[in-house]
Amino acid sequence: MRDVAVIGVGMTSFGELWRTPLRSLWAEAAIAALGDAGVDRVDLVTIGCMSSGLFTGQEHLASLLADELGMAGVPAARVESACASGGLAVRAGFAEIAAGLAEVVLVTGVEKMTDVDGADATYALGTAADAEWEGFHGVTFPGLYAMLARVHMQRFGTTREQLARVAVKNHANGLLNRHAQYHLKVSVADVLESTLVADPLRLLDCSPVTDGAAALVLTTVERARELAAGKPVVRITGSGLATDTVSLANRGDLAELGAVRLAGERAYAMAGRTPDDIHLAEVHDCFTIAEIMATEALGFFAAGDGGPAVEKGLTDLGGRIPVNTSGGLKSKGHPVGATGVAQVIEIVSQLRGDAGQRQVEGARVGMAQNMGGSGGSSVVHILEVV
Amino acid sequence: MRDVAVIGVGMTSFGELWRTPLRSLWAEAAIAALGDAGVDRVDLVTIGCMSSGLFTGQEHLASLLADELGMAGVPAARVESACASGGLAVRAGFAEIAAGLAEVVLVTGVEKMTDVDGADATYALGTAADAEWEGFHGVTFPGLYAMLARVHMQRFGTTREQLARVAVKNHANGLLNRHAQYHLKVSVADVLESTLVADPLRLLDCSPVTDGAAALVLTTVERARELAAGKPVVRITGSGLATDTVSLANRGDLAELGAVRLAGERAYAMAGRTPDDIHLAEVHDCFTIAEIMATEALGFFAAGDGGPAVEKGLTDLGGRIPVNTSGGLKSKGHPVGATGVAQVIEIVSQLRGDAGQRQVEGARVGMAQNMGGSGGSSVVHILEVV
Repeated sequence: MRDVAVIGVGMTSFGELWRTPLRSLWAEAAIAALGDAGVDRVDLVTIGCMSSGLFTGQEHLASLLADELGMAGVPAARVESACASGGLAVRAGFAEIAAGLAEVVLVTGVEKMTDVDGADATYALGTAADAEWEGFHGVTFPGLYAMLARVHMQRFGTTREQLARVAVKNHANGLLNRHAQYHLKVSVADVLESTLVADPLRLLDCSPVTDGAAALVLTTVERARELAAGKPVVRITGSGLATDTVSLANRGDLAELGAVRLAGERAYAMAGRTPDDIHLAEVHDCFTIAEIMATEALGFFAAGDGGPAVEKGLTDLGGRIPVNTSGGLKSKGHPVGATGVAQVIEIVSQLRGDAGQRQVEGARVGMAQNMGGSGGSSVVHILEVV
Repeated sequence: MRDVAVIGVGMTSFGELWRTPLRSLWAEAAIAALGDAGVDRVDLVTIGCMSSGLFTGQEHLASLLADELGMAGVPAARVESACASGGLAVRAGFAEIAAGLAEVVLVTGVEKMTDVDGADATYALGTAADAEWEGFHGVTFPGLYAMLARVHMQRFGTTREQLARVAVKNHANGLLNRHAQYHLKVSVADVLESTLVADPLRLLDCSPVTDGAAALVLTTVERARELAAGKPVVRITGSGLATDTVSLANRGDLAELGAVRLAGERAYAMAGRTPDDIHLAEVHDCFTIAEIMATEALGFFAAGDGGPAVEKGLTDLGGRIPVNTSGGLKSKGHPVGATGVAQVIEIVSQLRGDAGQRQVEGARVGMAQNMGGSGGSSVVHILEVV
């Protein structure tokens, strides 16, 4: 298996980008990543996108997007695992280079969710749940995550204020990220006074509906060293993928995200790392409770300690393990197919020392954790300066 | 790069299976393939599906289907490239084993297209074309392929009767396949008298709307030899992937399927084979013209000779290079995400000598060619007895 490195990153600003169609968002991110990498030819394009069919009436993105970039002919593949589609696109590109099937891969993620002709976002996102056993009965994702939150609060004593602290931290980080959808300082009181969406979750516990695209260029570590010209080379040392039951009704324990734990264990094993080795992480904070549960499932904190940890500032910028320095899904925005790729971009920027005001000093090992549905699938990558 | 073999195959019958939901179709095929392989544990599941979102309101099949088989936890990934989604699922599984990321992969394809709550098939399939520049203006796939047929007839003198001969041949083959949707002998006159759909294409030039699922089990050639117990080992020796412009308006030459040619060239190069080495092929005959153009793009016949070849019986069972011995999409049916996997099943069955009445004597090298949209993407695999 060949070693794989990230040699270029690029993304659009995230937000409600009403005037920009899916293909233009995608091309902007792709061109930025190719420019950053200094390459103009790729062997493969991977595309993470959850539901361009439902949102915009357009499937077959492999062909559409290769064509949009004037690359018709190049092999291209779309992958989907709901909101973990971006992470899956990273994995697909990683596998092709590791196998020796490709030398240079353009890994991308995109979602166009606002100002679309197709399904509304709540319906389209709801198709990541079990359509027959959850969606049909009217439950949508705020409701599913509210149930997870209730179980976590009951089991571990996680508090409403601890949930709010996730939003406060991530919005503070997002203020430092020019690509973020919101540049908005929020307080614990702001969260607690925001509109109730699905008890106990309020509006400021929820990530937004977002348009955006993100892209990476991957190649072998060997070639990355040739192209690096003295800059740090960032290698993907671990890649883990896992599923869990799609519906909460089938799940053994609602207080744990099993797919995140398994995907993390697989990534740690491949990289030869433990949670203590990770200097910073981007985790899938689609709702505030999700960040707390993810930090536990990844082993940064024991079960039940995720809430107190955020309250104590352990996951703040400057804390023991900074989490979601980019602002996370909560503040940076959540164009679902792009999210997993954008998480890796944040880690690469930090490891290169390019993160500006939100730079984590001395960061050499980082993790990106992407998740689909209510934890039905997860993809975890570990990246390191080599 | 490790060598990859197919050790198990399984599929549902194809047809209008009104009482069977997507997840049950999928599980039937998956269990059959695992039983055929004699394994009960896999490292990865890949799923080719074009548009479960539009057809059935269900995305996130990775989680849904792993769970359906009681395998929650196992890594799973859905891939999509319109009607080439099944071929792409084969490629994704191939890459993971080649890289050493997985030892045993369950490769699957599925589509539920009839008796669904979601979009009608014509709309959903139309999302494989350019939604803004083709679909919006009302053109659907029979119309797009009719344009390709007109150009081919004008350029090369391909006749209406030659198109009909494709349907006659494939329906004759389908009579010998118990999994086929139609067991229906048709004559040239039947085709020429069938309802006009999009001039020059008539109803019997078109593949049907179908429910179905298909599955393979892949592992290393080394492990396959251990499990074979004297049976032939079928190796995937070539895998090629390519795109072309998504819209016909952008395409340089409408008389050639460029993505098929490129994907074929890449598969031939990997396998160290030429068209003369191929003993039989399954090609993507979504419309009769598509089979003629595919046999030219793959180099079995020179440009313009595909029509005369089918007329002379060169692609018949018993001909120089039998094409679509399974009945093809035309007679076997076309559950779009499953098709690319089912094509590989036919080749494996032939190479194992398990094809019964439609067995091609002495078949040792076969090809499966899957296609998305109006040739916007294609995936080609070469399989050999080793």
